[in-house]
Amino acid sequence: MTNYPADFDPKLDLFFERIVDVPPNLVWKAWTEPKHLMPWFCPKPWTTVECTIDLRPGGLFYTVMRSPEGKDMPANVGCYLETIENKRLSWTNALLPGFRPAAKIEDGCLDLPFTGIIMLAPHERGTKYTAMAKHRDDFGRKTHEDMGFEHGWGKALEQLVEYVKAL
Amino acid sequence: MTNYPADFDPKLDLFFERIVDVPPNLVWKAWTEPKHLMPWFCPKPWTTVECTIDLRPGGLFYTVMRSPEGKDMPANVGCYLETIENKRLSWTNALLPGFRPAAKIEDGCLDLPFTGIIMLAPHERGTKYTAMAKHRDDFGRKTHEDMGFEHGWGKALEQLVEYVKAL
Repeated sequence: MTNYPADFDPKLDLFFERIVDVPPNLVWKAWTEPKHLMPWFCPKPWTTVECTIDLRPGGLFYTVMRSPEGKDMPANVGCYLETIENKRLSWTNALLPGFRPAAKIEDGCLDLPFTGIIMLAPHERGTKYTAMAKHRDDFGRKTHEDMGFEHGWGKALEQLVEYVKAL
Repeated sequence: MTNYPADFDPKLDLFFERIVDVPPNLVWKAWTEPKHLMPWFCPKPWTTVECTIDLRPGGLFYTVMRSPEGKDMPANVGCYLETIENKRLSWTNALLPGFRPAAKIEDGCLDLPFTGIIMLAPHERGTKYTAMAKHRDDFGRKTHEDMGFEHGWGKALEQLVEYVKAL
């Protein structure tokens, strides 16, 4: 297994770490079962209206987000890379299910290819939660940053915590 | 684990299967240790002059081929996806080590992105050897086919068998 976050590259990657007061197994459950992912995955008032999870390396990770105006975004289609229960979940949109390289969009490249990594570790207050997005170039990092990576993923995490506490 | 070759797509993928008269563990060794890979990996008179293998999901698979005239080709840089000893080896050049999406080449896309999969199964005569290359589109499949995928990988396999028999 690759050593994270030792291979974090500040020129190419985005990263944040938070302590959340729920245990790793509940965070894992919220990330890996569609019925437990859909309630929190999009920062409200956006919603997640479709989700398919085939939790194994090479398996499908599929979501569709809906805007507050009711417009569905193009589906997010990706492939799991690592599914280490309660510890690390990695996926990428650079590969489709079965590890097939993702199709070109328009003039020759995927729109915003990235690999997402969620790392969980037990902590005295619950879980140390680390989220990383890795990009092929600084344009990718900057684009994802401008889209509000940390704010958006952070807000979704707050929703996750609130959701699993109510389970 | 994805079900191979059930997800083989003849429009996008290339595939061949052969029975070889050496056991799976020797085929595995020849694919996963640089000193045992370099002697057979390129169809002669081409040679493999550099090889680095970090055998774990997310680990580097790096080779450099040299032409009969002594010219080194651009390095093949990829990332392992599955490393299931004596059974299945999957890697892709669509990701760099650490699962980072591969950089753009020239005007916006990777030259020939593919995922390679080698499957090994015990057979009464040695090993059932299955090789697959998965592409994002039919152009990728056709390009790889025209480069001589089956002939080249097949010839390399013959070299592999000859090499491991002499170990």
